[in-house]
Amino acid sequence: MKTGKAEIICTGSELLEGKLNLYVPLFHERLAPLGFAITREQSSGDNLASICDCMRGALKRADLVLVCGGLGPTFDDLTRQAAAKAMGRRLGYSKTCAQILGINYGLKTLPPNFKDQCLLLEGAKPLENANGTAFGQVITRGRKMLVLLPGPRKEWEPMFHDFLNAEISSFFKGLTPIRQLKLKIAGLWETQAEKLLRPVMRRFPGAAFTILAGPGTVDFILSGDDSGGAIARAGAACRKALGVKLYGEGDDTPASALGAKLKARGKTLAAAESCTGGLAAQLITDIPGSSAYFLGGAVTYSNQAKMKLLGVRAGTLKKHGAVSAECAREMAAGAKKVFGSDYAFSVTGIAGPDGSTEEKPAGLVYFGLAGPRGAGTFRRQFRGPRPVVRACAANFILDELRKVIK
Amino acid sequence: MKTGKAEIICTGSELLEGKLNLYVPLFHERLAPLGFAITREQSSGDNLASICDCMRGALKRADLVLVCGGLGPTFDDLTRQAAAKAMGRRLGYSKTCAQILGINYGLKTLPPNFKDQCLLLEGAKPLENANGTAFGQVITRGRKMLVLLPGPRKEWEPMFHDFLNAEISSFFKGLTPIRQLKLKIAGLWETQAEKLLRPVMRRFPGAAFTILAGPGTVDFILSGDDSGGAIARAGAACRKALGVKLYGEGDDTPASALGAKLKARGKTLAAAESCTGGLAAQLITDIPGSSAYFLGGAVTYSNQAKMKLLGVRAGTLKKHGAVSAECAREMAAGAKKVFGSDYAFSVTGIAGPDGSTEEKPAGLVYFGLAGPRGAGTFRRQFRGPRPVVRACAANFILDELRKVIK
Repeated sequence: MKTGKAEIICTGSELLEGKLNLYVPLFHERLAPLGFAITREQSSGDNLASICDCMRGALKRADLVLVCGGLGPTFDDLTRQAAAKAMGRRLGYSKTCAQILGINYGLKTLPPNFKDQCLLLEGAKPLENANGTAFGQVITRGRKMLVLLPGPRKEWEPMFHDFLNAEISSFFKGLTPIRQLKLKIAGLWETQAEKLLRPVMRRFPGAAFTILAGPGTVDFILSGDDSGGAIARAGAACRKALGVKLYGEGDDTPASALGAKLKARGKTLAAAESCTGGLAAQLITDIPGSSAYFLGGAVTYSNQAKMKLLGVRAGTLKKHGAVSAECAREMAAGAKKVFGSDYAFSVTGIAGPDGSTEEKPAGLVYFGLAGPRGAGTFRRQFRGPRPVVRACAANFILDELRKVIK
Repeated sequence: MKTGKAEIICTGSELLEGKLNLYVPLFHERLAPLGFAITREQSSGDNLASICDCMRGALKRADLVLVCGGLGPTFDDLTRQAAAKAMGRRLGYSKTCAQILGINYGLKTLPPNFKDQCLLLEGAKPLENANGTAFGQVITRGRKMLVLLPGPRKEWEPMFHDFLNAEISSFFKGLTPIRQLKLKIAGLWETQAEKLLRPVMRRFPGAAFTILAGPGTVDFILSGDDSGGAIARAGAACRKALGVKLYGEGDDTPASALGAKLKARGKTLAAAESCTGGLAAQLITDIPGSSAYFLGGAVTYSNQAKMKLLGVRAGTLKKHGAVSAECAREMAAGAKKVFGSDYAFSVTGIAGPDGSTEEKPAGLVYFGLAGPRGAGTFRRQFRGPRPVVRACAANFILDELRKVIK
């Protein structure tokens, strides 16, 4: 298996002053099929010497260096100058770029800040920007390639499809595409998933794996050369070992997996939420087209609302409390009835940090399910801060419902 | 103003294979008050030579180098060895560390993987781990400091408070704390906020600023030396310029700002959501203690649910459609009535990508507000993909409600 080494450089002081860098996983997704593993990522502030130093180091170590950001028209956009210095090349004004900007923006003469956007490194190939004025640039030297990309995702993302995939593939010949397979798992902790799947993976020494833990979910990512079908076979073996714990693949979420099942069977769903406070409904409705199967939900934080909207009996609340299997059962049944859906679920618990008692500690959650063939309840104790408890609870019930629907 | 240079090194192949690096903003928050600016961040895979190379470079450039991850007991935990190589020091078995682990875990003899955890660099000071077996390490050479931290946040976070803040302050004397002030803005786009506040900031040359854009919100972060009160004065001037557009500071969100106001006035709230599908309720209930003022919400995706739960009239839906000011008005009034709250809001629109028409394009959202002194509606056209439209819509109405409550 022949793979290339890629390094990523992200520029922008904001990345070192509080802004999350969301791009590295996105670049990984795009570079793996081209045969590149990312071996290092560097984030640098808007400082000419620092960006230049990052580039020099990366160009020594890696075959392909992607620099993102710093191509705008303001004083702190320094990537062009840094690249010129790192590569020992001049910046020149490109009339072609100027013509393209003139046409795209309907201008006869370009304003000064547009002119800066037309500076290319000697020998660079410009990449037209479908959503902005900054051109991307591809510069090669020997067997290395440096790529400059504008910072905003909507500007650099189309450049891969439009130009970069082809540029990279034709320059770096003979690399083995790294196939990635993302198995999405619910109902197992990270360690349980590893214990189950590590022995399976031993049978496929050509396949590497990474485990990413989410709230009540685990992503198991297989990667490697699939030209002999090793990744496909390893994936099949993992799927078999996981059984019903596998809820989907790729970009699936517990909500999208549930939604696909409901849609395929022409069934509808309603929600009754207390401690998740709308999170489960939000996850369901994040999926485009969810209005085809999701009728709605009731977020009943107060006891009054549980009674009035969902028909929970005062006696149930008095005898068992709102955090109880009995209340969960009545909430789910009430939601099924009031929304007129085929299925309904309920969540009622103590998300924390307030509201816990000795008998009902923070993280204790009851769930109800109501469907065409009856109803059921679950009780789970989650650990972690409020957002984790809520996310674990929402994912748990969405996944239980997926398993129930035949 | 005398500040130090810090570099961050995050180790772990998963950071280059799909996992988001969430730590850099957290380290920034902790290092700024100690007088350090982060000048570079590097993420490296679990490769001894690569981690060592990252450390060597960082130790040349920066005063303080923080390395996070790779201190566990498995074969791919290589940070200790890389640090030993980068610093030219040996690793030695620490009996003190062994004793601490023995006491903390009630073990008379340590298993082999615990013994690895007791390897310290020559001259290193160990930092006890309140939530795991890996010790942090502080190593100094000349005027430089290298800090090794375990990967999980719950393990490294307490080390700052327990040891590191004091270690760093006493080793690096005379640095000026970088004061940070985060102003939270709603109802202005990033460029509008910059246009409004850049002229204000010109009066305070000692204060730097960063702008981070969210969906319908903007964080304006002032930073610098506040020993002469420059940051406080710049902050006051910005607050004045922002007026009602400023919804909070620090970790405030539109939902927490609204919640604080409701709580202070002893008023209650209910929600009626269509296109946001539970997101607004989720944001409200993310706030601990929100049950004091949030009674609940109805997520009414179907027309049937809008009529049945919220009392929207069939004639309104027929004449104006679900995405209309009239429907929004009736949804808010219905939620106020059914939940018995002081205030209620509604959101109904087209989140996209499906469901748009020529008259009602994706991103068009109507809102209703109902309160003790009457009701009102709003109409907004948002741009962007489904999650952005939904988040903009939720933040918009939470913030409008904040402004309405007197």
